[in-house]
Amino acid sequence: MATIVFCLVSKTAQTTARRCLMSHLKRLPTPGDPVALLPGTRWFSRGSSVRFMSRGTAGRSAGGRTRRGALALGGAAAVTAAAAVAGFLANANHFQRAEMATNVSHAAGESETEGDILERCRGFMSPPVTDVGVLEERKGEMRTRMEMLIMKTQADFCNALQEVDGGTFKVDRWQRNEGGGGISCVMQDGKVFEKAGVNVSVVFGNLTEEAAKQMRSRGKVLKGKDGKLPFCAMGVSSVIHPKNPHIPTVHFNYRYFEIEEEDGSKQWWFGGGTDLTPVYVNKEDAFHFHNTLKEACDKHHPQYYPNFKKWCDQYFYVRHRGETRGIGGIFFDDLDSPSQEEAFNFIKSCSRTVVPCYVPIVYKHLNDSFTDEEKAWQQVRRGRYVEFNLVYDRGVKFGLATPGSRIESILMSLPLTARWEYMHEPAKGTLEAEMLEVLRNPKEWV
Amino acid sequence: MATIVFCLVSKTAQTTARRCLMSHLKRLPTPGDPVALLPGTRWFSRGSSVRFMSRGTAGRSAGGRTRRGALALGGAAAVTAAAAVAGFLANANHFQRAEMATNVSHAAGESETEGDILERCRGFMSPPVTDVGVLEERKGEMRTRMEMLIMKTQADFCNALQEVDGGTFKVDRWQRNEGGGGISCVMQDGKVFEKAGVNVSVVFGNLTEEAAKQMRSRGKVLKGKDGKLPFCAMGVSSVIHPKNPHIPTVHFNYRYFEIEEEDGSKQWWFGGGTDLTPVYVNKEDAFHFHNTLKEACDKHHPQYYPNFKKWCDQYFYVRHRGETRGIGGIFFDDLDSPSQEEAFNFIKSCSRTVVPCYVPIVYKHLNDSFTDEEKAWQQVRRGRYVEFNLVYDRGVKFGLATPGSRIESILMSLPLTARWEYMHEPAKGTLEAEMLEVLRNPKEWV
Repeated sequence: MATIVFCLVSKTAQTTARRCLMSHLKRLPTPGDPVALLPGTRWFSRGSSVRFMSRGTAGRSAGGRTRRGALALGGAAAVTAAAAVAGFLANANHFQRAEMATNVSHAAGESETEGDILERCRGFMSPPVTDVGVLEERKGEMRTRMEMLIMKTQADFCNALQEVDGGTFKVDRWQRNEGGGGISCVMQDGKVFEKAGVNVSVVFGNLTEEAAKQMRSRGKVLKGKDGKLPFCAMGVSSVIHPKNPHIPTVHFNYRYFEIEEEDGSKQWWFGGGTDLTPVYVNKEDAFHFHNTLKEACDKHHPQYYPNFKKWCDQYFYVRHRGETRGIGGIFFDDLDSPSQEEAFNFIKSCSRTVVPCYVPIVYKHLNDSFTDEEKAWQQVRRGRYVEFNLVYDRGVKFGLATPGSRIESILMSLPLTARWEYMHEPAKGTLEAEMLEVLRNPKEWV
Repeated sequence: MATIVFCLVSKTAQTTARRCLMSHLKRLPTPGDPVALLPGTRWFSRGSSVRFMSRGTAGRSAGGRTRRGALALGGAAAVTAAAAVAGFLANANHFQRAEMATNVSHAAGESETEGDILERCRGFMSPPVTDVGVLEERKGEMRTRMEMLIMKTQADFCNALQEVDGGTFKVDRWQRNEGGGGISCVMQDGKVFEKAGVNVSVVFGNLTEEAAKQMRSRGKVLKGKDGKLPFCAMGVSSVIHPKNPHIPTVHFNYRYFEIEEEDGSKQWWFGGGTDLTPVYVNKEDAFHFHNTLKEACDKHHPQYYPNFKKWCDQYFYVRHRGETRGIGGIFFDDLDSPSQEEAFNFIKSCSRTVVPCYVPIVYKHLNDSFTDEEKAWQQVRRGRYVEFNLVYDRGVKFGLATPGSRIESILMSLPLTARWEYMHEPAKGTLEAEMLEVLRNPKEWV
């Protein structure tokens, strides 16, 4: 099952590297058979000799080695993680850390769309879903640019979380019989995280009649050729359930959809969002989270944050409980304006906020003590999370109903443990009741 | 919230008793407001003086007092429970106990459809949903006979479980704004049971357009008067999640539906079933469970057991996992033949098997030791139980989508705790793998 690749590469020996990568890709599993990369190893590493990089140490190097380690890790995430750790160690408050993380992330990202595809792939958790050769050929196409972005977002987030936890993500590559595949990274029962999943998928083929119907019901006019509608869908999604009830659960998802019509023209749109599900209300955390999102949105359109914040509260609503799932964030779909370039730039901004939105909050509460009662309340809230995901979440419903879906990747969003107490209702005036009140009446946080 | 009724009644003083019951009913809550009966008290008791019966002692009296205690408990369940305890104490094997339980239950049931309504109500967990006066007036109607049966089934099962656990059920009466109500009995975090719920509901009103559409899609021809279809639906349902992973989860549900058409004629049908969800395969338990159901079915039609066993395997199927929820039992719907009387008799036989199907299995494994790994496997299976109930179960889906539903009663079927492990797959040759094999390929057990 486990496939480990040790490569002999010098800094400039890209031909060798490419050959090595291709030989790795040849050993990919048959469709439907996931391949686990051995935890603690990198699928690809940079150096002048055979190198085995343990995740436990990658990017953890202090002082003068930080920059080097960060580069080896592949960019912004490692730098962000290192900055966050440095800030934490230096006793900087979480806002400073957040700001540092945001700045570093943006700065590092400026040049990321330039450069060689293979070079940029080096920091990923696994080779991209699409063959690197194909990506290079189609370098300028949106599907390539988006695949590179979601792979990078996955790596950045995974690296930042590994940095906090000390544990390692299990990396599974899987292929879809009907076309495409994905990369699922899961860390379970870590020191900080009960369950952390970060998933990339890139699938293509012809739209099923059911899916086309669903899209038409959303107002899309789709004209197929001989009844066929070739599509390509890709995205990165993640749910992180920490152990400590004072560290909130986070979820994000950024996706791109492309459909080819009869005349060869393409319909495309983006969707996504990031939202927070705390167990207890913490106004400072809520402000930081929403404000980071707002700043990213405001750079693109003044209405994005207010509109997408409202959409988020409406979407993540557990109707039968009369509660939102958490304190929201942003959520949007069918984004196909003002231009593909500008929409993509917005998605890029959103993806870059993932680490600075969340990781400083994790560090802030890392050592918070908690009682059995607080843990039990967290478990009850986890139960509601499961209810939302299994009963309402469109992605989960679509996935479970789609033949050939990879169930483990769809359901990795479920917590490791959850609890259902009959007639659970917190006593008035408690912190648990305060949380419920916020879930029943969504607030403005910034 | 708690309503306790102490009544002065002599054996023949039914008038006094009725007055007492009516005065209790007057104090019923306003619609939508559930009333908890104080655990450990009976809403009504029989005797010549004020009596406070603790559930903890009711039916537990040994030797010469057993029969009397059993009568006070209201029939078959108490007798069954007492018989089971007696057998257990006398070291009889569980088959003997099961047989005793079955025989006693059948014998005690023969005369239960006779007798006075009020007299029969005495053993219930709470006054019936429908006013006793109304039930007496409509004594011969199927809706009355069915309500009496489901109330009795609830009491029998609750009493038997309390007997095993030593704990008491919390009894909530609730009313539905649109008509009718229910009685939810829940025991949580008991000695033996992690969560045990036994729910009765009797609801009526006019069918919503959505519900009528759903029924028409099942082949029913329904002609309403001025677009209205008055209906009455009632049933008893239960899910029991024990703590010990060697004691299986059980579920049953028996229900009756009646719709009045334009010309005043009534369409009616019964539905129901009982099924077992063990954590480990135990062929002896599986045989006992299925054989008890088969014997009950065979008395009515030789095809009932094989057909309803198959239907059960098909219905309780977690499609996205490719597994059945458990090892099945029986399941049927739309039963409206050969006659209402005979269909009701079948439902009665099924209801009477609930205690003898399950309770002997509980006693058999009461003191089985278990490891942390076995407990963890139980928790993973509980996760699958949640998946079935939230994603596929028609009753849950219908309930969650119906405004005015009592969510706590619908979701009391969820376990207290559950677990989702990413990529969980038991090693070959283990008892966990044996269980999965059975769930992937349903077996014949008798």
